[in-house]
Amino acid sequence: MNIEIVTIGDELLLGFTIDTNAAHLARELAALGVRIVRRATCGDDADAIAAAVREALERTGAVITTGGLGPTADDMTKPAIGSIFGRGMVLDPDILVALEARWLKRFGHELPASNRQQAMVPERATILANRHGSAPGIWLEDDRQRWVAMLPGVPREMRGMLADTLIPQLRERLPVGGSVVRSKTLRTANIAESALADKLGDLARGVDGLSLAYLPGNDGVDLRLTSHGRPARDTEQRLTAAAQRVREKVGRFIYGEGDDDLAALMLAECAARNATIAVAESCTGGLLGMRLTAVPGSSRVVQGGTIAYANAVKVRELGVAQSDLDAHGAVSEPVARAMATGARLRFGTTIGIGITGIAGPDGGTPEKPVGTVWVAVDMDGEVHAVRAVLPGDRSEIRYRAAQLALDRLRRAFEHDVDATGWTARG
Amino acid sequence: MNIEIVTIGDELLLGFTIDTNAAHLARELAALGVRIVRRATCGDDADAIAAAVREALERTGAVITTGGLGPTADDMTKPAIGSIFGRGMVLDPDILVALEARWLKRFGHELPASNRQQAMVPERATILANRHGSAPGIWLEDDRQRWVAMLPGVPREMRGMLADTLIPQLRERLPVGGSVVRSKTLRTANIAESALADKLGDLARGVDGLSLAYLPGNDGVDLRLTSHGRPARDTEQRLTAAAQRVREKVGRFIYGEGDDDLAALMLAECAARNATIAVAESCTGGLLGMRLTAVPGSSRVVQGGTIAYANAVKVRELGVAQSDLDAHGAVSEPVARAMATGARLRFGTTIGIGITGIAGPDGGTPEKPVGTVWVAVDMDGEVHAVRAVLPGDRSEIRYRAAQLALDRLRRAFEHDVDATGWTARG
Repeated sequence: MNIEIVTIGDELLLGFTIDTNAAHLARELAALGVRIVRRATCGDDADAIAAAVREALERTGAVITTGGLGPTADDMTKPAIGSIFGRGMVLDPDILVALEARWLKRFGHELPASNRQQAMVPERATILANRHGSAPGIWLEDDRQRWVAMLPGVPREMRGMLADTLIPQLRERLPVGGSVVRSKTLRTANIAESALADKLGDLARGVDGLSLAYLPGNDGVDLRLTSHGRPARDTEQRLTAAAQRVREKVGRFIYGEGDDDLAALMLAECAARNATIAVAESCTGGLLGMRLTAVPGSSRVVQGGTIAYANAVKVRELGVAQSDLDAHGAVSEPVARAMATGARLRFGTTIGIGITGIAGPDGGTPEKPVGTVWVAVDMDGEVHAVRAVLPGDRSEIRYRAAQLALDRLRRAFEHDVDATGWTARG
Repeated sequence: MNIEIVTIGDELLLGFTIDTNAAHLARELAALGVRIVRRATCGDDADAIAAAVREALERTGAVITTGGLGPTADDMTKPAIGSIFGRGMVLDPDILVALEARWLKRFGHELPASNRQQAMVPERATILANRHGSAPGIWLEDDRQRWVAMLPGVPREMRGMLADTLIPQLRERLPVGGSVVRSKTLRTANIAESALADKLGDLARGVDGLSLAYLPGNDGVDLRLTSHGRPARDTEQRLTAAAQRVREKVGRFIYGEGDDDLAALMLAECAARNATIAVAESCTGGLLGMRLTAVPGSSRVVQGGTIAYANAVKVRELGVAQSDLDAHGAVSEPVARAMATGARLRFGTTIGIGITGIAGPDGGTPEKPVGTVWVAVDMDGEVHAVRAVLPGDRSEIRYRAAQLALDRLRRAFEHDVDATGWTARG
């Protein structure tokens, strides 16, 4: 089943609201095996709504809209789409009764006249109940089984109606054993998109119903494998086999799947080993501590840390040797190592992590360009350090430096600490 | 000028990525007086891209696309749109040279073969420089002045190219004296949306061409005033007058305008007063230090800090009295005060900031529910503390606690430290 989505609202079109409904709809429908072929957004304008929905309907015969069902004057989705089907507007007594009851219960007074219009629906419409708000959804269908489902724009109401009503309804319409979509995301750190592409090429090329997407972000590059086809079993098997091939080629760079968070994984690993962590942060200024303590229950593992932004603090609080600062500079291997060990000893933990680097925009030199960071992990006195030249702006460099530190901790746990991937460059 | 936007990418269509580019583009273009009449999203499919862009081009003759300019095989925007204009693909030697130089400089090795395709462009294309990434933008125009501007999908690159290149180019094409949209955002902290609404009501009601929007976020509630009409001068004056009225009513809660960052404002204030800062963080775990050091040049002000997650660390590193911990608990006024003073003394700064709280999801009690935080600011030995019960989930509570601490510093500078607004509740 191919479907198009039309999201309606001046706020969306003008960019004052970011359209999260479209993404949610897309994910839910893809999981059903429904294919979204296009999405459109138009403003609160009857002609624009009618035009966008009519064109979508001509292409796919199946359209879901969000927005424009509320009580305000600029909500005109129902009449606009009704006109496409040649349906006039009529008052639905059931909706009116429900609205009036809701208002009395909720606000202790009668339904304002401006809200009565919420009870107006196109002729021969199917009402989609809204347990989460006052504006019901509408299903319109013509004698050629072409249909439009109108959902509210308020995300909570839209999501509720989608789950309660629309998805069950769509399931009934899907061919038995129909095409489904399955996807799996493998999360990599410490390697560049281009290096991954060189190793993986396009695994999916030539494999029917399989696609591989490279999704670079601050956590690293996510590899999204998507498999679609029928029956579901073959689709699953194709996905599993592809994931296996990816792991064979770049497994050492993969730290997790789906939306795994490297900090949470490392905390769980530490907890399992009764390990504790202290951090010593210079260029990240607390970002690593923030990420670790963002995880509920992290207090079992994280004792604390020192934000050593000034060099004097590195010396006084962490025992970094002034001679190392003078000889090698603050962004250097001996300083990173001393920071990691200093944190471990000062806070009496089993693990110390040190980060020092040049986040920019200033402070770069030919030998140490902006993005240069040294990260060290001290595990029970065994210290590993790595240098990286991280891409991006100041905030990206800082975030990536913390992610690199977490990835080095992962590597230390896996006894795989030789510098590899893009962080080894330069 | 009417424009349509086409955003390209399976990730957008499948909902794995939320389309923030479209919103940013819309806001920037609306400010120019350009009217966006429709937005479409299609996947990484050459036919789908060509169809969506062709239809948009037929309606408006002016289209901006984002995405699909990268090095991977699924990036096919350029050839697809080139085909609409009947243009083949050619290698642009300038882009290739720039790409190669960029890679050598950045990664110290040669351009991977997979990245060469970024130098392929449609015939007779105008190149839009990309200072923020490797994929340049493309401007294609036919002899009827119908044009398509192709921007990258990476938000930072798209925004940079829009500001550097596309907006200046569009300005030249706009009619003089047309209707314009101007907006101004006033940023508040430390007061709830409902409290603001009680004080402001709808300032804009009954004022033609003026609107006021409440935009709550983790930084606080932003007040967005939008004025539209012609001529530009009257539109500006309407906006200025409205902003003045807002400041008269809720000025003490306003810390900045536009995208002002409270941390950056406080660092500038400290620098102007030769003040230095040290932080002591418990529930925020480094988030405040991270925010302060996110600002370039912050090393002039920020000396360092202690992440005191464990109580033993609070006592040993910051001189918190064990008796206070026993008598009042870690989330209490005396502990927050001792943390602020301990940080100031330990790091030898003029200002110390202490944060202790219950970020949840566990650890709440009837007297100290999840969200309870105590924040203290020690300025040259004068200590102010405030309690708040912050809404939201763990990450929101942590972020808001840091924002509250920064706002208390602002209040301390302004000698306006009595607790007001929502943070005083509970």
